[in-house]
Amino acid sequence: MEAPTGEVRVGAKPTMNYVLATVIQFNQGAKNVVLKARGRAILKAINAAQITVNRFLRDQVEIKDVKIGSEVVGEPDKPRNISTIEILLERK
Amino acid sequence: MEAPTGEVRVGAKPTMNYVLATVIQFNQGAKNVVLKARGRAILKAINAAQITVNRFLRDQVEIKDVKIGSEVVGEPDKPRNISTIEILLERK
Repeated sequence: MEAPTGEVRVGAKPTMNYVLATVIQFNQGAKNVVLKARGRAILKAINAAQITVNRFLRDQVEIKDVKIGSEVVGEPDKPRNISTIEILLERK
Repeated sequence: MEAPTGEVRVGAKPTMNYVLATVIQFNQGAKNVVLKARGRAILKAINAAQITVNRFLRDQVEIKDVKIGSEVVGEPDKPRNISTIEILLERK
């Protein structure tokens, strides 16, 4: 059976919360963890990914893929675009 | 001769300045343009890339690759890490 892909949605909490959520998922056996964020949380997701691969799981996990996109949010009569990111981490 | 790769360094100016810089480089014949940013300018670079591919050069240019990394900045006795992004756009 293939190891599951974990998911961490990055939002308003401190960066380190998302680092720990990511590390825990790898420690529980995930082969991949994807960090997802929108708008102003994007920088936090990138920082959390960097801290995970350069500090906590150095030489064990790598950034496999980064996708950026956009979503429409807001009221139906006042739609606006918000940028999104998905950072795929993979155990080496 | 291969078409040159343009470069746009995204910083403190309004997002639309970087969109226009990118569009101009494609209009001058670039096959690729790479948007580079660090820290808080990262979200602006992503927004500029999205506006370029979804609005100004829709169906003409696509996001080919996204790389994230980190750099050490600050005084030698007080180094700190800053996240970086490089967004490669390519004419279809």
